Amino acid sequence: MDLYAKSGVNLQLARRMKAGLPALLRRATRPGALGRVGAFGGLFRASFPKMRDPVLVASMDGVGTKLRVAVEMRRYETVGQDLVNHCCNDIAVMGAEPLFFLDYLGTGKLEPAAFRGVLAGLAKACAEARVALLGGETAQMPGIYRQGDFDLVGTIVGVVERKAILDGSRIRSGDAIVGLASTGLHTNGYSLARDILFRRNKLRLSARPRELGGATLGETLLRVHRNYSPFLAALRRMGILLHGASHITGGGFEENISRILPARCAAVVRRDAWPVPPIFDLIRRRGDVSAAEMHRVFNMGVGLALFLSSSAVPSVLRAARRHGLRAFCIGEVVAGRRAVRLV
Amino acid sequence: MDLYAKSGVNLQLARRMKAGLPALLRRATRPGALGRVGAFGGLFRASFPKMRDPVLVASMDGVGTKLRVAVEMRRYETVGQDLVNHCCNDIAVMGAEPLFFLDYLGTGKLEPAAFRGVLAGLAKACAEARVALLGGETAQMPGIYRQGDFDLVGTIVGVVERKAILDGSRIRSGDAIVGLASTGLHTNGYSLARDILFRRNKLRLSARPRELGGATLGETLLRVHRNYSPFLAALRRMGILLHGASHITGGGFEENISRILPARCAAVVRRDAWPVPPIFDLIRRRGDVSAAEMHRVFNMGVGLALFLSSSAVPSVLRAARRHGLRAFCIGEVVAGRRAVRLV
Repeated sequence: MDLYAKSGVNLQLARRMKAGLPALLRRATRPGALGRVGAFGGLFRASFPKMRDPVLVASMDGVGTKLRVAVEMRRYETVGQDLVNHCCNDIAVMGAEPLFFLDYLGTGKLEPAAFRGVLAGLAKACAEARVALLGGETAQMPGIYRQGDFDLVGTIVGVVERKAILDGSRIRSGDAIVGLASTGLHTNGYSLARDILFRRNKLRLSARPRELGGATLGETLLRVHRNYSPFLAALRRMGILLHGASHITGGGFEENISRILPARCAAVVRRDAWPVPPIFDLIRRRGDVSAAEMHRVFNMGVGLALFLSSSAVPSVLRAARRHGLRAFCIGEVVAGRRAVRLV
Repeated sequence: MDLYAKSGVNLQLARRMKAGLPALLRRATRPGALGRVGAFGGLFRASFPKMRDPVLVASMDGVGTKLRVAVEMRRYETVGQDLVNHCCNDIAVMGAEPLFFLDYLGTGKLEPAAFRGVLAGLAKACAEARVALLGGETAQMPGIYRQGDFDLVGTIVGVVERKAILDGSRIRSGDAIVGLASTGLHTNGYSLARDILFRRNKLRLSARPRELGGATLGETLLRVHRNYSPFLAALRRMGILLHGASHITGGGFEENISRILPARCAAVVRRDAWPVPPIFDLIRRRGDVSAAEMHRVFNMGVGLALFLSSSAVPSVLRAARRHGLRAFCIGEVVAGRRAVRLV
């Protein structure tokens, strides 16, 4: 064992782990990707012959402390999927089609099981979303991360026709707001959820609270963040014009909706318009959290909000059903100053 | 104070910190960038009218445990610069011109001073490299990071003409290897350096070991990773054809050179061909590290290696001098099987 390994950085192990990557990543590609594992950077052709003025859309994000649940459950694949899907949604709400993805895994000490699990999840989600997994980095950082802990960061790059960029500027008073059902917490609010469920209420991940209908708390908390980008692509193919879209993540309804509202619009969201998944009620009651704070921290069952002419609502709801997605008309746009009113 | 803040996630503070960003980032842009702070993703026009077959080159990386030195020194700006410069080099060695950058800051608890310092460093390095700082994410993750610690991850995207991609395939027996001087450790080998200097030898960051000629250990260890991409762009403008280039980072000479060598080539590197900065001698002697391991872990004073026809060496050395860069002819390519021989 060399001195570097003794100081906590094992280059041999890193090399062995990387050797298995090409097979794992075989399906996580798409036309345009020219990359190969081992190069300093990943390659993707910037030719979009069907577009007049192509614009790249890029976003970088993590999965938050959902990672702590994954580490405690020793289930690593789903957080890999979460990361890809979360990133896809962030650019899908701007109208973009995802093209390629890169990942970063920061660790205290390399754990081969965590590495393989995370990479398998990333590859699976990329293959499902037809996104090329173009590159990544695994950093061994003894002293920064606690033993067994790690952070997981992803970058997505997609493309959109400049005129079709969805920035909310087409939203107008009278528009309908359609909510697409989430699978649960997605990747937000885990610090509060963990504090309430595990620290204050001493529940275990293996607990099966009555409210969850048979599922364990751990399984419920690890449910995979849904990727809505294939559905948004389907709406584009159907010629349905969205006026805006909002990924309900950190900051909840208020922050994520107000950031895309034009200056003279406000949003009214009816809280009784969709069924709130039981995990949120469990957190609210066990933690004595106000309804207002619940909607500021969590998605409450709505992973994505679409803004569109009310006349387009029926066809969007039908399209969602065909996609196996539950969708609800959750509110409307009124005159105002970018406020989000939950009623 | 709401419950989310009590669980360790302070959305109000995050919003206040973000409010200062637009002014800070004003100069960190370039033509093509359409992004605005607050959107779900950053925008960059994918039109490269002077290129026949443009290819995007993307890379994602961190700065390793150099962060621990920055945290202990409470100097955050330089690691921001390190991150941008490191990422630029990773795609410059593939022939690419950097276009835009995104950052991720993962923390246990948000520290406004660290946030401002890091962002100022990122913005400064982006402005210097004419790279657009297109977006970023700051994650509050209580329970994953230790108090005061954070991780810093960056993604760079650049563009290269497909025929000009530098993948090493043009390297041939007889080529010269030119080394470009580093400023010090850059962003590699800090776990070993810290283990030797601080844990085993009980040195302090404020120490001024004789060998360092008056500088403190902390200052020397925080010297900024040099960005070679402007110099490589200058060589392209001069019409100098590189056969390959290698960023000497994690894995040192062996790993970073062998990954670009064609199957029938090997590299001979003469260790006495350049002056090794004193910090490396200090680490080697205080840690009793073998010469072989030093070259596997550290850059030893060579931040980037260029592969080119020996006839082009004089003009490259002259160009480097004009750029204020020290450059050395450090070896040559011979027939072999991708081995890197340090002699």
